[in-house]
Amino acid sequence: MADSPDAERTMSPMELYEKLTSQGDQVRALKTAKADKAEIDAAVQLLLQLKLEYKKLTGQDYKAGSPPSDNSAPFNGAVEDGTNDEDTVDPWNVSTSNAKGVDYDKLIVRFGSSKIDQKLVDRIEKVAGQQPHRFLRRGIFFSHRDMHQVLDAYEKQKSFYLYTGRGPSSEAMHVGHLIPFIFTKWLQDVFDVPLVIQLTDDEKYLWKDLTIEECHRFAVENAKDIIACGFDVNKTFIFSDLDYMGASPEFYRNVVKIEKHVTFNQVKGIFGFTDSDCIGKISFPAIQAAPSFSNSFPQIFGSRKDIQCLIPCAIDQDPYFRMTRDVAPRIGYPKPALLHSTFFPALQGAQTKMSASDANSSIFLTDTPKQIKNKVNKHAFSGGKDTVEEHRKYGGNPDVDVSFMYLTFFLEDDEQLEKIRQDYASGALLTGELKKLLIETLQPMIAQHQERRKHITDETVKQFMTPRPLNFKQ
Amino acid sequence: MADSPDAERTMSPMELYEKLTSQGDQVRALKTAKADKAEIDAAVQLLLQLKLEYKKLTGQDYKAGSPPSDNSAPFNGAVEDGTNDEDTVDPWNVSTSNAKGVDYDKLIVRFGSSKIDQKLVDRIEKVAGQQPHRFLRRGIFFSHRDMHQVLDAYEKQKSFYLYTGRGPSSEAMHVGHLIPFIFTKWLQDVFDVPLVIQLTDDEKYLWKDLTIEECHRFAVENAKDIIACGFDVNKTFIFSDLDYMGASPEFYRNVVKIEKHVTFNQVKGIFGFTDSDCIGKISFPAIQAAPSFSNSFPQIFGSRKDIQCLIPCAIDQDPYFRMTRDVAPRIGYPKPALLHSTFFPALQGAQTKMSASDANSSIFLTDTPKQIKNKVNKHAFSGGKDTVEEHRKYGGNPDVDVSFMYLTFFLEDDEQLEKIRQDYASGALLTGELKKLLIETLQPMIAQHQERRKHITDETVKQFMTPRPLNFKQ
Repeated sequence: MADSPDAERTMSPMELYEKLTSQGDQVRALKTAKADKAEIDAAVQLLLQLKLEYKKLTGQDYKAGSPPSDNSAPFNGAVEDGTNDEDTVDPWNVSTSNAKGVDYDKLIVRFGSSKIDQKLVDRIEKVAGQQPHRFLRRGIFFSHRDMHQVLDAYEKQKSFYLYTGRGPSSEAMHVGHLIPFIFTKWLQDVFDVPLVIQLTDDEKYLWKDLTIEECHRFAVENAKDIIACGFDVNKTFIFSDLDYMGASPEFYRNVVKIEKHVTFNQVKGIFGFTDSDCIGKISFPAIQAAPSFSNSFPQIFGSRKDIQCLIPCAIDQDPYFRMTRDVAPRIGYPKPALLHSTFFPALQGAQTKMSASDANSSIFLTDTPKQIKNKVNKHAFSGGKDTVEEHRKYGGNPDVDVSFMYLTFFLEDDEQLEKIRQDYASGALLTGELKKLLIETLQPMIAQHQERRKHITDETVKQFMTPRPLNFKQ
Repeated sequence: MADSPDAERTMSPMELYEKLTSQGDQVRALKTAKADKAEIDAAVQLLLQLKLEYKKLTGQDYKAGSPPSDNSAPFNGAVEDGTNDEDTVDPWNVSTSNAKGVDYDKLIVRFGSSKIDQKLVDRIEKVAGQQPHRFLRRGIFFSHRDMHQVLDAYEKQKSFYLYTGRGPSSEAMHVGHLIPFIFTKWLQDVFDVPLVIQLTDDEKYLWKDLTIEECHRFAVENAKDIIACGFDVNKTFIFSDLDYMGASPEFYRNVVKIEKHVTFNQVKGIFGFTDSDCIGKISFPAIQAAPSFSNSFPQIFGSRKDIQCLIPCAIDQDPYFRMTRDVAPRIGYPKPALLHSTFFPALQGAQTKMSASDANSSIFLTDTPKQIKNKVNKHAFSGGKDTVEEHRKYGGNPDVDVSFMYLTFFLEDDEQLEKIRQDYASGALLTGELKKLLIETLQPMIAQHQERRKHITDETVKQFMTPRPLNFKQ
């Protein structure tokens, strides 16, 4: 667990960026002060040299005010790229003006991640020996970092572990919240790897008007819905930050290591924090970063710090892990790999992420069959035409139709889904009929979830949430 | 452990200050924009009203750029008060240009604390039923916050607990490091109260070029010297942050509560942090604050959050506890009381605090009798005259003589000390003779410390550092 001093001697892109910025200030100050020409020349010389190093290190030209990120994309996802219709995507805000939702191809360029293309999907199929999950087949998990590297190692019998999480801001979870868990369970089954799930109850306490006790209770309640996704208790550790931080000196040591290697300037650039933010928010990113390193879980991995971590998550969480990947080599740990999902649309349309506080914005895991039926019929934004006649004549638009989008997430059969798309687009399938298909898909799915959740006892939750060894091939 | 929402609804001086500052900005912006007169008038009206509230709350006039602190002194100890010879006193820097040392009376005014006057010393004697410790008799503990309140409660059978600490930046401790521990042991014996001692190994890792493992090892080594001061294992809990943070969910919960109620603006004002500081430094003050609240130690105090804390420490640590006292009522906890000591002078003179990295700047706890003799004779700054003749004629100056200062700390007999002072001032006592008296005081004291430390086993350290119940009257 010692620091790796060798790794620290090389400057990171961010350190070099900061040095460049301060050297630029220096040059300006000398010029303003009408300093000696030789002195100014020397300072300019150093500035140019630093710019060369920066270009060499990041592959990009230095630009004042644009800190570097992983793969040299601007750190902050919300930075403008010259167009005015930019989507906003960060851990607290997701918005777009487009009814089809966020432009994910643009996001890949802006965040500096890589697209999950057909080649990668095929490769996952080959390595896993299974048909890829529908989320992969349909581009719902659409972006990644270092997934090829994970597969390379896996093919050489070098395994990895999975890390995902959730911010427990209320008891209520909706179907959209299940996306990362459904996919993570598939990865766990297919690759037979251990999994850690972080419930950031401390984060919710810091950000929301809630007490510590409420946040912790939400964490435990949410854990039940997560367990109901079918995770293997022998391979899965679920933890509340409020519990685990106070139960694992190794976890805290990694938090402190990360905290030492990230400045306020950096979190300001990445997350948009200001001087009026509380110091808890400012240091929280280190707590979401720490589970990316295997020695944060000695009960599972012993003192091994070299086990690769793979993080399936929605793309809005990427800023945390860009920061983590920047820090990792400087503290002697491997960078976590990532698989990014698109956002699950609100019933009202794909322009926004859903709100757990608006019961009509999504299908909740506690909804009755009747509530599901009413919500879909009343609130699901339709891509159909105004009258049956027009619809039959011109057809509907599945690209903006929320019922069709939901089916993309939850209907397993590819052929059936494609037929629905064609029939809706041609006008053969009416909006009411499409909604009925969705209702018939959701009702049994939610009922089965509720049935599984009903059987999850406090004892089971305690089992999942107790730090302990896990079973997996090492 | 729930938050106290009632307490939170009242604005703290700092919140009101921030509101005032932003209202001032607002008025200026309206004027600059040549806004409607009625609008400007309304904004000015609100500004005046806020100023009245501020005066009522803090007893002071609002002044832009001067945030409020406890007792309305400026938060930052280093703020100028109009004179140019201001001493610098904060947790990382202590300096003065005066050979007699820091001007402590001025510091009391600047920090907004209270002087430990003869009346308070007499009262402690009465309540404790013992002669006050020489550190109290001689003004070495010279300043306090709320000590009368602690004694009021104690007289009504409402007890308190002690909290002190040390930053383990190296294995080497010198006699100056013992001052708070010698005094704390006396308080523990006299009042029969439990004591917690925090070793901030996480802080040292964040501030210094050291590994986590080194800092933790220093903490354990320092614990041995602290235990050698004679603390009662049944009443004393010593902890390393790196260990205890990961062993007590209750401690972490208090850290997060504090972190939620302190902004970057505030720690910037109090500690002088900048945007280039790492996020670990920025959030660390919450970790030094947390032991001030009794429910951080459930193994000792159960879930009780109302037990008063008394903190004996050197005055440079006060900024941490001004912050703590500001936060306490907002999270429903009592403010900790404090007893502040002066600084222990370096052998070279009272202008600076000692450095653990300069072996000749003080007497170390590992020094041999010969080393003690050589150091005092060679390095202890003398207030004597240049020649014996002059000294006999004009006398020496005990106020700047480091040997005499050290005797003030360590020679128990008041009459003997006073006689030494008079004889040195009159010239009857020569510098060499004064140094000999100091050497004869230090040699047995250090030898006894070394003897006690030798018998402290790893088992004993483990006992002190294990979270467990303590024995005390409740």
